[in-house]
Amino acid sequence: MNPTERVRIQTREADTETEREDVLAVEEPLELRIRADGGDAAISFVITMRTPGADEDLAAGLLFAEGVLRDRTDLLSLDRPADPRIDPELRANALIATLTPEALERAGGLRRGTVMGSACGVCGKTSIENVIPADQPALESPLRVSPEFLYSLPARLREQQSIFSQTGGLHAAALFGPDSAIRRIAEDIGRHNATDKLVGAAFLERGLPLSDSILMVSGRAGFEIVQKAYAAGVPIVASVSAPSSLAVELAQTAGLTLVGFLRDRRFNLYSNPQRVLSR
Amino acid sequence: MNPTERVRIQTREADTETEREDVLAVEEPLELRIRADGGDAAISFVITMRTPGADEDLAAGLLFAEGVLRDRTDLLSLDRPADPRIDPELRANALIATLTPEALERAGGLRRGTVMGSACGVCGKTSIENVIPADQPALESPLRVSPEFLYSLPARLREQQSIFSQTGGLHAAALFGPDSAIRRIAEDIGRHNATDKLVGAAFLERGLPLSDSILMVSGRAGFEIVQKAYAAGVPIVASVSAPSSLAVELAQTAGLTLVGFLRDRRFNLYSNPQRVLSR
Repeated sequence: MNPTERVRIQTREADTETEREDVLAVEEPLELRIRADGGDAAISFVITMRTPGADEDLAAGLLFAEGVLRDRTDLLSLDRPADPRIDPELRANALIATLTPEALERAGGLRRGTVMGSACGVCGKTSIENVIPADQPALESPLRVSPEFLYSLPARLREQQSIFSQTGGLHAAALFGPDSAIRRIAEDIGRHNATDKLVGAAFLERGLPLSDSILMVSGRAGFEIVQKAYAAGVPIVASVSAPSSLAVELAQTAGLTLVGFLRDRRFNLYSNPQRVLSR
Repeated sequence: MNPTERVRIQTREADTETEREDVLAVEEPLELRIRADGGDAAISFVITMRTPGADEDLAAGLLFAEGVLRDRTDLLSLDRPADPRIDPELRANALIATLTPEALERAGGLRRGTVMGSACGVCGKTSIENVIPADQPALESPLRVSPEFLYSLPARLREQQSIFSQTGGLHAAALFGPDSAIRRIAEDIGRHNATDKLVGAAFLERGLPLSDSILMVSGRAGFEIVQKAYAAGVPIVASVSAPSSLAVELAQTAGLTLVGFLRDRRFNLYSNPQRVLSR
């Protein structure tokens, strides 16, 4: 399945009307199912809209982000449905994760609804405590980068955004090493999928934690982006746009350096600025 | 609860380092619970990250988008938790929807997991059929707009984006009338929340369907934006950025006019161009 698709469209500009071909980013559902080793029935875990490509990375990243997968050994296999009666197009939109009993149990806990008493509730503080419980230490990392290093990232992200350059329609995320080499890039129509693909790929290769990586995202930095970076052990997160209040609070609590509005040789530092050298 | 928050940050620009105050868009969880009339226990339906403000609109919009609410009479009331023991901050992040038995039954159906046989699957086509079954007619509307009308929308959306102008961090959505008056605007950190707030407000006021409204969104037009517009009866959806493949397919099938890359006195028409006059 291709990540882009061609369509005929009409373009209006001032008073002119033209017909032309346009390239769209493909958006298709991916259904992630889970099952026990040797089990027959796979249970639907989540259906997410995504741009096809690196589906296995996305699936592993989603299960890791949800806390279902903690260690590489929790995932026994990741397969397309085998049944020959299934239409190839449907098969391309489904993946089945075979899990250990412990991981399956954690997934089951997520799927069960909970009847809540009237004294329960949520707030930013409890959201942060769910990510980083009070007894868990903040992330520590000796990683340091220069302002020049950060200034260089947006252009290098754009260079590598092959689908975006055709369609203008995708979110991108990339991992950079401290030597400023790009380690991996992912693009996706879904806001968080590109980050899940990066983390999932590292998970599958037993490359977590990403203690010496810098995560750069093309969009805004919300709570979930910082949460995913923390889970993967990434100490520095940079975004071309604005962070949210809760993203900043979580980054402060979790020990991450959060860089925002990184463009045109400037940026803001929202937390843990010690990882960015003075020059 | 405020939609913005002040923080002290460090700014680096070229070789200079300054400390200053920055304004962030607030991101906080909203927990939406549902219950039966006269029932005691409220069940958690969804927790979504949102920017505080117009919470009732967002809650109604979410329940409408999921198909739980079909008619205004399905929603008996929408209240903050009443228990005085609850911390005011938590109360500000929760809403309880009291539903008719029919609506509650539909919500329950959504929350139950389904064991799927190996021949099931998903694809773009089934996603579209879930939104608009084969026996359901496409949206029809005599609404027509001029290119000048569309050219004027991005500037008028920006003028009204009060939180974005302070934070640079929010998605906006607005409904315009054919007389080009702005009817309502919503801003939110969540990609789809701004649209849910608009539709939810109209639902609460018994203002659906929005047959003579134009929806303008500040971000990309993905499948879910078109789905929400179709559910609300909006015939024209305009976006400053790119649509996805599935958004275009759904707009074609559902009879919506989808306008993309609307900026700098130009736009693309992806479906049902007959609603945009030649000049």
